[in-house]
Amino acid sequence: MWQATEDVLESIAIGAGILGTGGGGNPYIGQLRARQAMRQWGPVTVLSPDELAEDARVVCVGGIGAPTVGIEKVRDLQSYHALRAIEDYTGEKATALISNEIGGSNSVEPLIAAALAGLPVVDADGMGRAFPEFQMKTFFVYGVPCCPMAIADEKGNTVIVRETVNPAWAERLARSITIQMGCVACYAVAPMTAAQVRRTAVPLTLSLARDLGDAVRRARAGGQDPLYAILETCPGKTLFSGKVVDLDRRTTAGFARGTLTLDGLDACAGERMVIEFQNENLIARRNGETVGTVPDLICAVTTDRGEPVTTELMRYGLRVTILGFPAPELWATPEGLAVAGPRAFGYDTDYVPLMV
Amino acid sequence: MWQATEDVLESIAIGAGILGTGGGGNPYIGQLRARQAMRQWGPVTVLSPDELAEDARVVCVGGIGAPTVGIEKVRDLQSYHALRAIEDYTGEKATALISNEIGGSNSVEPLIAAALAGLPVVDADGMGRAFPEFQMKTFFVYGVPCCPMAIADEKGNTVIVRETVNPAWAERLARSITIQMGCVACYAVAPMTAAQVRRTAVPLTLSLARDLGDAVRRARAGGQDPLYAILETCPGKTLFSGKVVDLDRRTTAGFARGTLTLDGLDACAGERMVIEFQNENLIARRNGETVGTVPDLICAVTTDRGEPVTTELMRYGLRVTILGFPAPELWATPEGLAVAGPRAFGYDTDYVPLMV
Repeated sequence: MWQATEDVLESIAIGAGILGTGGGGNPYIGQLRARQAMRQWGPVTVLSPDELAEDARVVCVGGIGAPTVGIEKVRDLQSYHALRAIEDYTGEKATALISNEIGGSNSVEPLIAAALAGLPVVDADGMGRAFPEFQMKTFFVYGVPCCPMAIADEKGNTVIVRETVNPAWAERLARSITIQMGCVACYAVAPMTAAQVRRTAVPLTLSLARDLGDAVRRARAGGQDPLYAILETCPGKTLFSGKVVDLDRRTTAGFARGTLTLDGLDACAGERMVIEFQNENLIARRNGETVGTVPDLICAVTTDRGEPVTTELMRYGLRVTILGFPAPELWATPEGLAVAGPRAFGYDTDYVPLMV
Repeated sequence: MWQATEDVLESIAIGAGILGTGGGGNPYIGQLRARQAMRQWGPVTVLSPDELAEDARVVCVGGIGAPTVGIEKVRDLQSYHALRAIEDYTGEKATALISNEIGGSNSVEPLIAAALAGLPVVDADGMGRAFPEFQMKTFFVYGVPCCPMAIADEKGNTVIVRETVNPAWAERLARSITIQMGCVACYAVAPMTAAQVRRTAVPLTLSLARDLGDAVRRARAGGQDPLYAILETCPGKTLFSGKVVDLDRRTTAGFARGTLTLDGLDACAGERMVIEFQNENLIARRNGETVGTVPDLICAVTTDRGEPVTTELMRYGLRVTILGFPAPELWATPEGLAVAGPRAFGYDTDYVPLMV
């Protein structure tokens, strides 16, 4: 058990930016929103999955939409409204909240609703990173029902996706609703039990985000290399280092999709990396050879300061280093890869685990 | 109180086709589906609004989607599933069903769910005709909440639109959900009271549809003019008679939209009528002059047999007569015209009531 305070938020924003692999919503804006919520309603207690009471009712809350829109149309308390809507629908009161994805602003989305509702959050999430689609959660891969779920916007509209034939249909319906709501909304899924959280969530990811951010902040303050600090905190490897020479990014079908091209610098001089993304970075090719794929994490950070660069803020000329981290174990299974492996995103390539 | 039987269905299909003003879903397919339901579960009792018990809970059920799709992707028991979903959501059991619109297959949609559920239907509806959009119901114009409402498809997906800032938002969300469901779905709105039905519904429209169909069938059998029989049953006038010389029809944004052009025959020789439609016929211009607009009814029937021609079956070369009928009184008010007058459909023209 630990307290998520304003200071911790700054670290979480950095760590969640790294783990977000480009997506999950802008972590800086998420941090500002969470800070405001904590100033108004106080800090939030974070429980490890083991600390949950046996009769806990854990609601997963998150933002849905395109991060390119989310930086202009900032979320307010939609996740709280979605929480109340799903409580009202199911007749069950939440005793704790959990993040749908630890990446980006979605890492702190439950903290905002939890501060207002006076609830703790669980130190875990449904991805251990960020993914663009609703069904891509370890919860649902391992049998937690994805419905009913509530979606709320800032105008006062709420919709319950009550029952779907599979989780992909929940994504399809929720996405079209989100697009109508203005490409930015929040959702809450019907409560999970403590046993379900322990069995299906990626554990201890909020503290991992915090620790990553702490390491970067310490390195910066001490004049050390923040990239080294990142790789020391979370085992991974450098995939490329270079300069953004092309960025083709469109907001389409409710997502930010496109391609990022880097020309190598320093040790990578004369080489090229191309990364394809759909909110998140999905596949990285170095000189045409695939060197990283989902569900492994492909993360862009500024080379000098180790600052994560999300999809919506990526721009021409930035000097970035691409880091790779192995996917959480729950993804590296046949069931996990069926939902979030490269083929699930339409790539005709098998998952080749990143060797660290 | 009367019984909706298989024979009555044949008349209702003709009358609802006329009152549908082109839309409301294909009445012939609706009739076949209702006939099958009655063979399986028996006929349905029809109650006038006055015959409702004071504690009645009346659920409005209907189809939503594009009629061009509905003739290829025939509905099954989605309206029954939507009914059960809204009963489940509200915790209230329906005691009677009511049609959302008397036009087209939506006239019989409640009969199908009612036959299976063993409920009566009310001899009334929310339009007295057909309109393309969900919010265009007299219920909502006069204060009945449009939410919560349930939407169901044939696959097993159900969604609850729980709360919206206004009825137009319910349409917007329901339409995008329907498009994802394959452009054909059914919905059920939270129960109304008997008093609400009496105050806000267009009364006795199911018997009007039946009477119109009876009149056409009698005229055909007796070798009389079915058009004359229609105008004798429901006061209206002939707006045009001619041949379809052009039809520009697209299925777009979840609707069948387009323009119909007729060249005059007989008394109308040398003249031209152009009708714009969005599922339903919205505005009719004779030689460039507006001679009919929503909410008045602009109905196309075959000139020889008085058979209604709906938007999805209209085709080049058909000889049709365009009949006009005054809108139900509930539409000819400032509140009604704000929702379903010509300006609500984007036409820069005022409503000029049809003089009969």
